[in-house]
Amino acid sequence: MIDPRVASGLRDLLPAVMIPRERILRTFRETFASFGFVPIETPHIERMEVLTGKGAGSDEVLRQIFEVTNKGGTPGELALRFDMTVPLARFIARHMDEVGVPFKRYAIGSVFRGERPAKGRFREFVQCDFDTIGTDSRLADAETAQIIYESLTAAEVPPFTLALNDRKILDGALEALGLTGKTDLVLRSLDKLNKIGRDGVLAELARPADSGGAGVSDEQAAGILDFAEGGRGKPDVLDAAEARFGSNERAARGIADLRTVIRLLEAGGVPADRIAVDLGLARGLDYYTGVVFETTVDGWERFGSVASGGRYDDLASLFTSRRLPGVGASIGLDRL
Amino acid sequence: MIDPRVASGLRDLLPAVMIPRERILRTFRETFASFGFVPIETPHIERMEVLTGKGAGSDEVLRQIFEVTNKGGTPGELALRFDMTVPLARFIARHMDEVGVPFKRYAIGSVFRGERPAKGRFREFVQCDFDTIGTDSRLADAETAQIIYESLTAAEVPPFTLALNDRKILDGALEALGLTGKTDLVLRSLDKLNKIGRDGVLAELARPADSGGAGVSDEQAAGILDFAEGGRGKPDVLDAAEARFGSNERAARGIADLRTVIRLLEAGGVPADRIAVDLGLARGLDYYTGVVFETTVDGWERFGSVASGGRYDDLASLFTSRRLPGVGASIGLDRL
Repeated sequence: MIDPRVASGLRDLLPAVMIPRERILRTFRETFASFGFVPIETPHIERMEVLTGKGAGSDEVLRQIFEVTNKGGTPGELALRFDMTVPLARFIARHMDEVGVPFKRYAIGSVFRGERPAKGRFREFVQCDFDTIGTDSRLADAETAQIIYESLTAAEVPPFTLALNDRKILDGALEALGLTGKTDLVLRSLDKLNKIGRDGVLAELARPADSGGAGVSDEQAAGILDFAEGGRGKPDVLDAAEARFGSNERAARGIADLRTVIRLLEAGGVPADRIAVDLGLARGLDYYTGVVFETTVDGWERFGSVASGGRYDDLASLFTSRRLPGVGASIGLDRL
Repeated sequence: MIDPRVASGLRDLLPAVMIPRERILRTFRETFASFGFVPIETPHIERMEVLTGKGAGSDEVLRQIFEVTNKGGTPGELALRFDMTVPLARFIARHMDEVGVPFKRYAIGSVFRGERPAKGRFREFVQCDFDTIGTDSRLADAETAQIIYESLTAAEVPPFTLALNDRKILDGALEALGLTGKTDLVLRSLDKLNKIGRDGVLAELARPADSGGAGVSDEQAAGILDFAEGGRGKPDVLDAAEARFGSNERAARGIADLRTVIRLLEAGGVPADRIAVDLGLARGLDYYTGVVFETTVDGWERFGSVASGGRYDDLASLFTSRRLPGVGASIGLDRL
């Protein structure tokens, strides 16, 4: 007799879980479509080269890739997708003449990561992605955040907060503090603020670069921490940021853009008490270049973001020479 | 620049294809649910042992299995599912105390087969399966066929014909013709009737067993061919089969059962002109033991069945000692 278990990190979903999931997915599809997004589907299996191209995924994600081989196939040639952004980039490079750009698409499907099961994470989970490709408009930025709000509300998710930032503000502040070139290290430390506390982050920032720190001065470290900690709250935290960093051109543009997005959101009917600003929010190191979003269920912040995304400058540079800016977000079905 | 193509046998689905697909899937879910079926989901990745257990899949299917490995994982341990029947068997063995039996479930998802791409087949395709586990009832048999009818009709599939058989009739006829023990070879030849014609099948049946034939006498070969060819048509072909093989106990039971199923279908509102009997229909060699279904779109028969299934005696014998008879069908979304 064969043991009917599934491999670690994988799951069977029983009717008690699946029935509400199908209801939620249906409201998501209806919401995405109501904003003019159309569905596409890409294969679960991609060519390895597509998934591992420079900048396609973080080192961590690439280490977790599942390779796929069949009898007679060449090992190392195929793999399971680890997200739906890289396949979207490949898709739009391949099909842009057929679908036209700007292109608003959604895609719902499983992605796969060979996490160490000990971490209690799933190796297969469902993402609900929607993106607007080929526009630099603030309206698309605001629409993306509004769709997060409308989707979660339609799915009857408990009260949640949509935190926004614009990466230009953060980058401008780092620039003004003389920290350009250390962005990655600083952001990596800032990301640990909730875990290791202010003093821990200060110590890490001050540690020399050759010991894995950012090697910044005490003054710089305090400056960036004050900026990140003081930058959490209602949209009026932007006023303080403007007073401090408004003379930096990049920061000033970011502040103006974020104010526009928030104005559009409020005008679009998203309640002000659902909107927060978090100037330390980066959402990954390299990828995003403009607005970024993160959504947490009130009181369940420690479970992480249920919907996040942002604006990128150039989606598909691995696959086409045409610059394709865009904005998008991903809702994690398994976190709802 | 990386070539944005997909590997051979895989596809991107553009909005023009996806929009009707999503509409169809929605009508399927609604139809399945209206008959009391609940959704489940199993992982795309199963343990290799589960997929390759004796009787889990045909040799052909097992040769096409996609193995899955991640860094640090053990090669040969995991694989992509090639259908949703084996995962259902594993699921019900594992969860029967939670979900209860009889259990009516549907599952919609991708399955993977490493077909040689030259054949023009897809290596990833979507199946829409529904099964009733844990009952020997004719009502479940008829309900399964009725759901095929209702689903395809709701999805506005062009006029189609639902061909039915009961494997007991075919097995009984082979028994009466003295062909027990040669069932596999005979059915394999019969399956080629459309391709190689009556004379081709006769020659193959008569060829000695050690040359890959069935080694049956001319009289036996003619008998089984007459049975299969004469057994295609409206339900009254059962009268001729009864006259010829009604004295065989197994065939007689099959004829009675199939008549009951057809009566139930017609009483349930399935138009008589959509129902056909095909006494040569086997749908695979070992698996089915009672009623079998196959559905073709009128005028497009050469593209094969769009929805098929049947009754099995014991679904999950690989995984549990509890006998679980059932009946189910699978609609091939990519064939609609």
